[in-house]
Amino acid sequence: MATIEFFWDPVSPYTYLASTRLPALASDVGARLLYRPFFLGGVMQATGNRPPATVPSKGRYMMADLQMWARSYDVPLQPPEPFPAKTILALRAALVADEQAVGEAYAQAIMRAYWGEGRDISDAGVVAAVLRDVGLDAEAVLADTQREDIKAALKRNTEEAVERGAFGAPSLFVGEQLFWGNDRLDLLRQHLAASAR
Amino acid sequence: MATIEFFWDPVSPYTYLASTRLPALASDVGARLLYRPFFLGGVMQATGNRPPATVPSKGRYMMADLQMWARSYDVPLQPPEPFPAKTILALRAALVADEQAVGEAYAQAIMRAYWGEGRDISDAGVVAAVLRDVGLDAEAVLADTQREDIKAALKRNTEEAVERGAFGAPSLFVGEQLFWGNDRLDLLRQHLAASAR
Repeated sequence: MATIEFFWDPVSPYTYLASTRLPALASDVGARLLYRPFFLGGVMQATGNRPPATVPSKGRYMMADLQMWARSYDVPLQPPEPFPAKTILALRAALVADEQAVGEAYAQAIMRAYWGEGRDISDAGVVAAVLRDVGLDAEAVLADTQREDIKAALKRNTEEAVERGAFGAPSLFVGEQLFWGNDRLDLLRQHLAASAR
Repeated sequence: MATIEFFWDPVSPYTYLASTRLPALASDVGARLLYRPFFLGGVMQATGNRPPATVPSKGRYMMADLQMWARSYDVPLQPPEPFPAKTILALRAALVADEQAVGEAYAQAIMRAYWGEGRDISDAGVVAAVLRDVGLDAEAVLADTQREDIKAALKRNTEEAVERGAFGAPSLFVGEQLFWGNDRLDLLRQHLAASAR
């Protein structure tokens, strides 16, 4: 069974868009979808890549483009404030949620909260509400986000993605083949379908 | 009848990939495809955008990504030398070819020569061979590339694209809606199909 490693950070709108399609895609091609939180700011710093909006006309285009994708996918899209939000707490909480076997539900919910509902996920109260929504003890999880092993695990995921060639988000790996971006889901699907034959 | 304005520079591999699909796409949705050569280097300079390969891991990914797209589209892809090539002469020749009503055939042929066949289109001899292939008097066209009105027309196309929001290639406009990249052809098709209803 093939595995899709899905490196995600909720700060990235294209990662949210991809997250709305990946579970069905994985199911269709009989692949396992592995959610791997990583810190996009660290990836940018390590690789020298820059966010799209550092080019003003690219930033303007991106907002229109996101709305077109959202309409095409028939999913909500609500540009959040603040953008970019600080996502370190939300990402560390993802690693704790994963220990408690609700990693996927939390990942989906925190991305939807930020880009689907425009909620400020840099606010610990919003992260706590999302944690409760997926059935977790929010206070306990937030306390666990301060564990050294959780902090180290997020750093390790980020460094591993960069070492394997990632420079942005979403970064989807099938073995060592990288697929970058919501706009590579068709190529990812074709690759998995061809591998399964 | 809707018009797709296709701003293209043969230096861009994703523009070549898009060029292999756009005629059929336009025909499918009943739109007119208008080829508008522009100088991508000027767009980058005006907008502050940077080519992908300025981030080394993005450059490595791009080469694998291009091969996946080419396989998916079933079109040849031969990474050319030199890259990036100087394309000013090839672009000015496109404007002359357009005057002689073979703008589309030339645009298709010069992109295929560079990315499909790996030929050095910064070489006037290669441009001349492509001009002859589409039935033109190569020496006369090359002489015409030095006309001031041809030079000015390329500059004007480039400035117009930037003013309308372009920051890379291919840039596809339907009215004032920009679609950027080979990976936006599906959104472009949906947009045109919805407009036609």
